[in-house]
Amino acid sequence: MIDYEKYLSNIAKSMRASEIRELLAAISVRKDIISLAGGAPDPATFPKSKLAEISVKVITEYGDSSLQYSETKGVRFVREILVEFLEKIRGFKANVDDVLITTGSQQALDIIARALIDPGDIVITENPTYLAALGSFRMAGANIIGVKIDEFGMKTDLLEDTVKKIISEGGRIKFIYVIPVAQNPAGTTMSTDRKKHLIEIASKYDLLIVEDDPYSYFTYEPNVDTTSLKTMDKEERVIYISTISKILAPGLRIGWIVSPDNLTRRFEIVKQYLDLHTPTLNQYILGEILKSDIIFEHISKLAPYYKVKRDTIVKAIEEYFPKDIWYTKPVGGLFVFVYVNIKGFNATKLMPIALDKYKVAYVPGQSFHPDGSGANSMRLNFSFPPPEKIEDGIRRLGDMIRNETGLTS
Amino acid sequence: MIDYEKYLSNIAKSMRASEIRELLAAISVRKDIISLAGGAPDPATFPKSKLAEISVKVITEYGDSSLQYSETKGVRFVREILVEFLEKIRGFKANVDDVLITTGSQQALDIIARALIDPGDIVITENPTYLAALGSFRMAGANIIGVKIDEFGMKTDLLEDTVKKIISEGGRIKFIYVIPVAQNPAGTTMSTDRKKHLIEIASKYDLLIVEDDPYSYFTYEPNVDTTSLKTMDKEERVIYISTISKILAPGLRIGWIVSPDNLTRRFEIVKQYLDLHTPTLNQYILGEILKSDIIFEHISKLAPYYKVKRDTIVKAIEEYFPKDIWYTKPVGGLFVFVYVNIKGFNATKLMPIALDKYKVAYVPGQSFHPDGSGANSMRLNFSFPPPEKIEDGIRRLGDMIRNETGLTS
Repeated sequence: MIDYEKYLSNIAKSMRASEIRELLAAISVRKDIISLAGGAPDPATFPKSKLAEISVKVITEYGDSSLQYSETKGVRFVREILVEFLEKIRGFKANVDDVLITTGSQQALDIIARALIDPGDIVITENPTYLAALGSFRMAGANIIGVKIDEFGMKTDLLEDTVKKIISEGGRIKFIYVIPVAQNPAGTTMSTDRKKHLIEIASKYDLLIVEDDPYSYFTYEPNVDTTSLKTMDKEERVIYISTISKILAPGLRIGWIVSPDNLTRRFEIVKQYLDLHTPTLNQYILGEILKSDIIFEHISKLAPYYKVKRDTIVKAIEEYFPKDIWYTKPVGGLFVFVYVNIKGFNATKLMPIALDKYKVAYVPGQSFHPDGSGANSMRLNFSFPPPEKIEDGIRRLGDMIRNETGLTS
Repeated sequence: MIDYEKYLSNIAKSMRASEIRELLAAISVRKDIISLAGGAPDPATFPKSKLAEISVKVITEYGDSSLQYSETKGVRFVREILVEFLEKIRGFKANVDDVLITTGSQQALDIIARALIDPGDIVITENPTYLAALGSFRMAGANIIGVKIDEFGMKTDLLEDTVKKIISEGGRIKFIYVIPVAQNPAGTTMSTDRKKHLIEIASKYDLLIVEDDPYSYFTYEPNVDTTSLKTMDKEERVIYISTISKILAPGLRIGWIVSPDNLTRRFEIVKQYLDLHTPTLNQYILGEILKSDIIFEHISKLAPYYKVKRDTIVKAIEEYFPKDIWYTKPVGGLFVFVYVNIKGFNATKLMPIALDKYKVAYVPGQSFHPDGSGANSMRLNFSFPPPEKIEDGIRRLGDMIRNETGLTS
């Protein structure tokens, strides 16, 4: 038997599997379990017949190009249409050469990590933040410092204290990573003032910002300020990333980075050695979707569809959970993130009991916290399960919290 | 203006754009130039109507899954069918859990690099070897040592000397990377004896082998030994990678790694943070193609189709090039690699003259050589251009070699 350990890189030795993906794999065969653990859109929203029609068109009419190798940066006509789409829907006009199409926004995170992070460099994130962003940054050797959030997003006064402290200690901050709208996992949305303050801090301390923006395209409440940081960015400090995973279909794996020209060039070179380019066929399909008005029509249907589910989960939490919890009613996105403030509640440790005894799955929140806190938190998905399952799942979780913490006699 | 340089990682600062891709981008708009610089299959070979039909089917019938997030390792039914395909066509029976589907074989290289290489570790390759493999390994910090080749592939006696020397100097060899059949760029194919010797050396010195196998599916000569190293691997030292780019369509971006179980698990964890998973839709399309017999029928047509082009380029080289050259008539693949043994011939320096004066493009061979040699070599593609362009292109190159080296009066 060969000892493969000795061939592994230090990175490979240190990496752990994402809890979410392990969990999803394990419970996918358990039909008795209600899963609130996923992060998937509802497949009922996928515009299947349109996508089928467009696939035939791009293969039949443009197959010589759509099935062939293509530019690392992304197919040019797709980048052009994407620029128009972003101007209409997110309010900023990117230069077509500043757009890099990526294989999902996960690859955008990985490219940014590799182009910017040396081992020991510091990345500042919200605490908690998106698990797989932490994974990408850590894989590049980043030392991640989390800044606490409240319902208005990252506490920017704490951010400034944190930045000052890191600089005074000689740390090298590479960027601040934020999800301003409907944050994953916490469901918070940055207030206008916080966004302004964030931009000011970046300017004052000469820092870059990575704005991750998967969820802003549709929100469940009127009068939410979903303004992109990119539109407030006068000094080209914002690297903007997004994806079609939540507004079209994640199985196509398309995302993008909009960045200052000098950085785009570097990101492109890194991407060459990752996968040469994002699948050409998928880019052509996206291009055709964006060229038509299907996308806007489709997006306009998503908000009312998911709002019903969001309202269901919030109502169920109010009804079935004990009162000693903290969570933010999310204005968008797919998740509610709950902290249970009852002594002895540990969401990670309770997971096997949740599965076996209460037949319900969630994602333990601890691994979303770069500082290792959050053992009392859990991420609950409302986009995938039907409303009646959501309610039943929350009821089961409420029972678990009460019973396992001894709240119930 | 922000100085972005200071935010870059050391890796990003050191990376250079691939010459091939830069070149292709630059000449794509020059209709007067005959390009032998590409690496693309002939789009006339893409089974468009079949792919269109299958796309509709997988979106319409399985859209809930095919457009959704999927397992990092790859969609299970696709891995199962792939295992059967590999058994039929490459003669080894993989375990379905040892297969990891990747976003093109480029990602397979990147995953292997990140999971195995720490900065300063040594990777041994053929000299010359595939440019973008060098890029992936270097991006992980590898120190690459090339071993010379002849028409029978890597000189394994030199390999053993090299291994001994590295070990005696305290170097840490992570793996030996080889393309045994129809090597890119050199077109060489390893003899049976060389393959046996390679496996013996790996066993004797306790090393891993990465076998890159994109071209073995069809060859232009009878009686070529295309046996996979994987079938000769009794000690699980071979990490096998391949792709559908040359036998179906590169625009789908699907490749795979077959590796010992302990390594597959590690590769899977790394891949999670690269792009979560390879596009589900593309995997479903591949699954349907492999399920039918289309793939074998299709592959059987490729050999005679490309043989005509291979014969054209070889005949033209014999006719138009001076005699002081060395090259291998390739038994497969898409390239002929030519060393010009005439004083003063430098393919890199002559490139602008080739484009402007002779209206012909090739890839200068130097960057394929990990030791920086090969300034007198060039890679010539015969898969993409039509036969008459191949002949005309080679004639122009022959003129250039004679004129610019002063061979002609």
